[in-house]
Amino acid sequence: MERLENNTVYIGKKPMMTYVLAVVSQFNVGSENVIIKARGKSISRAVDVAEIVRNRYVTQAQVREIRIGTERLPEEDGTSTNVSSIEIFLSK
Amino acid sequence: MERLENNTVYIGKKPMMTYVLAVVSQFNVGSENVIIKARGKSISRAVDVAEIVRNRYVTQAQVREIRIGTERLPEEDGTSTNVSSIEIFLSK
Repeated sequence: MERLENNTVYIGKKPMMTYVLAVVSQFNVGSENVIIKARGKSISRAVDVAEIVRNRYVTQAQVREIRIGTERLPEEDGTSTNVSSIEIFLSK
Repeated sequence: MERLENNTVYIGKKPMMTYVLAVVSQFNVGSENVIIKARGKSISRAVDVAEIVRNRYVTQAQVREIRIGTERLPEEDGTSTNVSSIEIFLSK
């Protein structure tokens, strides 16, 4: 599975449409696959982004695969916490 | 795919461990498949629940499939809003 970094959109705390447009732009410049990644509370927004792209902007895009996982994040005090992650693979 | 309702755990606003234990209990009474469902902001917690179950309690459980979708929710004023949903299919 192709995983070029420029095909990946990381979901953060910007307005939702920022990420929707980033995904749509990737498809518009010719990418056939776009990966939407998020961690923690941004996971819900990643699903929103995928659904909005698919339902409104790139209607031929399909969810090819969804992976979930756990990442260990280092804290400033030297400890670490686990955070869930998601990767949504869209293809058209 | 078997989809008996008693195999399904709906993620809401209770403490996380409530849902983790609900999933673990389903496996312990003999279910081979448990479906974790959530909508909107609870989607992130659904992923957390799946990951905690898999990493700490039912280590032979695997994520068999993940589906995302959009549901139309009626509002009190007669309008409706779209909300994203997730279904995580765990099997052991």
